Amino acid sequence: MQFDLAGRFVLSADAKAAEAAIRAFFEEANATILKRKGAEPGTDEARVHDVRVEGSTIHVKVESKGRLRAHDALLRLRKAMGEKLGKAHRLGVRDVIIDAYEVTFELEKPVKHPVMVPFAKAVRVEDRTATLELANVDAEFLENNYIDRMINLVREKVNLQHYEGKGEYHRTMWSSPSKEPRWDRNPTEAMVERDWLKQGPTKGKWVFRPQIAAIIRAMERIAVEEVLKPAGFQEIMIPHHVPFDVWLKSGHMHGVPNEIYYVSEPRTRDVAEWQEFIDLVKITRKVPTDKLLANLSPPNAGICYAQCGNIYWSFQQRTIADASLPVQVFDRAAVSNRYESGGRHGMERVDEFHRIEPVYIGTREQLLDVREKLVARYKHVFNEILDLEWRMAWVTPFFLAQEGHDKEVVETDKLEVGTIDFEAWMPYRGSREESEWLEFQNLSIVGKKYTDAFNIKAQRADLWSGSSGIGLERWAVAFLAQKGIDPADWPAGFRKFLPELPKETQFL
Amino acid sequence: MQFDLAGRFVLSADAKAAEAAIRAFFEEANATILKRKGAEPGTDEARVHDVRVEGSTIHVKVESKGRLRAHDALLRLRKAMGEKLGKAHRLGVRDVIIDAYEVTFELEKPVKHPVMVPFAKAVRVEDRTATLELANVDAEFLENNYIDRMINLVREKVNLQHYEGKGEYHRTMWSSPSKEPRWDRNPTEAMVERDWLKQGPTKGKWVFRPQIAAIIRAMERIAVEEVLKPAGFQEIMIPHHVPFDVWLKSGHMHGVPNEIYYVSEPRTRDVAEWQEFIDLVKITRKVPTDKLLANLSPPNAGICYAQCGNIYWSFQQRTIADASLPVQVFDRAAVSNRYESGGRHGMERVDEFHRIEPVYIGTREQLLDVREKLVARYKHVFNEILDLEWRMAWVTPFFLAQEGHDKEVVETDKLEVGTIDFEAWMPYRGSREESEWLEFQNLSIVGKKYTDAFNIKAQRADLWSGSSGIGLERWAVAFLAQKGIDPADWPAGFRKFLPELPKETQFL
Repeated sequence: MQFDLAGRFVLSADAKAAEAAIRAFFEEANATILKRKGAEPGTDEARVHDVRVEGSTIHVKVESKGRLRAHDALLRLRKAMGEKLGKAHRLGVRDVIIDAYEVTFELEKPVKHPVMVPFAKAVRVEDRTATLELANVDAEFLENNYIDRMINLVREKVNLQHYEGKGEYHRTMWSSPSKEPRWDRNPTEAMVERDWLKQGPTKGKWVFRPQIAAIIRAMERIAVEEVLKPAGFQEIMIPHHVPFDVWLKSGHMHGVPNEIYYVSEPRTRDVAEWQEFIDLVKITRKVPTDKLLANLSPPNAGICYAQCGNIYWSFQQRTIADASLPVQVFDRAAVSNRYESGGRHGMERVDEFHRIEPVYIGTREQLLDVREKLVARYKHVFNEILDLEWRMAWVTPFFLAQEGHDKEVVETDKLEVGTIDFEAWMPYRGSREESEWLEFQNLSIVGKKYTDAFNIKAQRADLWSGSSGIGLERWAVAFLAQKGIDPADWPAGFRKFLPELPKETQFL
Repeated sequence: MQFDLAGRFVLSADAKAAEAAIRAFFEEANATILKRKGAEPGTDEARVHDVRVEGSTIHVKVESKGRLRAHDALLRLRKAMGEKLGKAHRLGVRDVIIDAYEVTFELEKPVKHPVMVPFAKAVRVEDRTATLELANVDAEFLENNYIDRMINLVREKVNLQHYEGKGEYHRTMWSSPSKEPRWDRNPTEAMVERDWLKQGPTKGKWVFRPQIAAIIRAMERIAVEEVLKPAGFQEIMIPHHVPFDVWLKSGHMHGVPNEIYYVSEPRTRDVAEWQEFIDLVKITRKVPTDKLLANLSPPNAGICYAQCGNIYWSFQQRTIADASLPVQVFDRAAVSNRYESGGRHGMERVDEFHRIEPVYIGTREQLLDVREKLVARYKHVFNEILDLEWRMAWVTPFFLAQEGHDKEVVETDKLEVGTIDFEAWMPYRGSREESEWLEFQNLSIVGKKYTDAFNIKAQRADLWSGSSGIGLERWAVAFLAQKGIDPADWPAGFRKFLPELPKETQFL
């Protein structure tokens, strides 16, 4: 990496009289504070040049290589110079300004198309080299470490150009025997026809009438009693509002902001402040949007996307006793929302869903053990209770692939950090060989990603974590797609949990 | 009621030549179309006077009494005049404008302070008489029936002046025997100390760790298995977003807009449109509010305040077969939110809570019968399982009192439309005689209010409806306030549902 900046120090008075001392100071600095101790000559060091004193301003150029950034060198110079000139010449350093800054760095992969990042005047890219141009950079900007994050963002964008269009890594690990399906209808359509399901009053949300509600609640009991309790999980209940702070740590804030339902609270609960709004609603029977917005705070939270964020938050900055490891908890209280837009489909891809999320925190060994137990219980449920045709596939989600975990799998065959997708054949979509199967559940180990982000510690060992998403709508729809909606066709294992369906309400 | 307006018709050309015909038309109208058939002379009729023709404009004054409003008379005149002048004089009526309008009406109660309503230039009130002054009223405004709603709003505001400061009607109907409490601590504080409860990451929401989660889930099982199923209820699952349309019908939109958590969806799910937001989050690790707001649609829904709104919506405009009456359903899927602000207290008054809401729709007789069954099951639970010191009180909520149901109770002793509050002694608040008891549940019959609003019909009879709010946090906190948090102190009836508590996680 190479850093070239043109900047200036603004002093408290004319510096002409001190010019010799100033030049001497920079000479000395080049030989001392701008060298990194123990670094190879020519690496990790900075150099001031082209010093020009004009009135109370000292113009400088700074170039650096390696890990000492020119802007850090500038801040270092400011401090040392302040001490030096203050004592000997009664001059203070009032401000430090970067007029122009160029950062040149190597990329992991060659660039395919131009990239841009906020705050940059320009980003020049060529093959494996990128140059960030900045202008008028202030000290606050430097101190907040934005420049390093801008460099990372350029790298990430170029890497992404190489992932685009590629599917995520997918390797089938295990398949159940094939099972003869009872029908090949789309169960959502069949249930809408029978009025078991009704489109809700807002996008992508269903009203589940008693028959399908009973099926979903049976799936919930199976998940709790046949998987989570036997595998040693305790139930907790977490809030379903997730503040931006949590999502900044978990990465959702930049990962999926376009899929979040945002929540605004009233600016005040004082009825007097709402009186005009209330009167207008009473007279017009409409909601006056402008008056509403004036009475709301901007969103600072959204509705649960996955429960794990708030669960990790609940352990934030705590040190867990060895005797309590692994921590194994699950939540089924928070309702999840995702803005699916064009992706909505039947009961399987919706904007509101009911999901159980077990989270596990422990050492690497403990987590591999938890996963083994969970997989054994899931197999029991999907084979013996639901009697599904299903398979497990190892996938490396994009965010883990970026950290190199896809190479790990391909090169070392180590299935540790990553995700297992559980997929079911959906006969209504076509043949088992050619149609897309439904991911009806997943199970991940994410290594130190979240325990680091939320600073969750053990007495000695490093903590890993992971979680599993049990989508009750997806369990139900995978089951119904293979077994039909007539209880007489259902396997005995499931009928133990739901011997009969509630009576239907008759409408005229 | 008296209506006086000064308005004008704008014609397509000069009307001088037709002046005699115009005057004749108004004379005739006064004797015909502005009289209500069969009305007493001098009531329910309108009269045009002070007609003045100026170029293409006809200025008129219209006064009316009773049920024929002057503005309706004006619209009626426009239509008839258009037909008359069009044929005979080739003049069209281009527009009708009200320059000034006064509506004078009697109030039920004398006014105490001045009142104001939107769209009015002024509201003059004196004792039991109010006069609404309007200026520059256009036809759209008239056709939308805003004036009648403005009159109602003035009446309502004056009535409210007589309710202010009065508590709602409250009469104790039944009390349990007194019970010796096991302690007098605030259970929330005790549970926070033991880390069973942790304040959530946003206002008024709790993280329930395994011990209290187990207690709340036990309460849920008791409610479902010991109350709702034996009383004949079927479970449904409804969306927890409630659109404004539903709240406009249920009255929440004007009743509690200051307590709603509002939901905004992304303006688009297209990542390209979110790219700048995403890049800024990555560089600054902050959420840029302006960019966020630019990418959101204004709220068109809020989070569940009570489940009944969406439940009624799900039966909207349906006719229920007699054989399916009464409809008895409950939801426990939607998480409820209320912005409590200064009212927050412990686990009993929170911004997020878990509530089961049974809703019943049927004839008056069916509903009185459902209520009797529910009360019997609730008594069984609170007496024999939770062993509480509690009471039932008849209350008439304000919205029903306004419709006269409070008088009904006092004058006829008819306990039909109204609410039963279930209240428990909270020993930590003070003596059973002097402290405020906690409303831990309620049960209402609301008559035709919601079946009318959502147009839910039966084959023959009128449908009533009602609902009951089972607050699981409130059941739990009432129980713990009397019985303590040590399972050894709990009544055997409850211990059958929760024999032991989950092990506590140890932190350092």
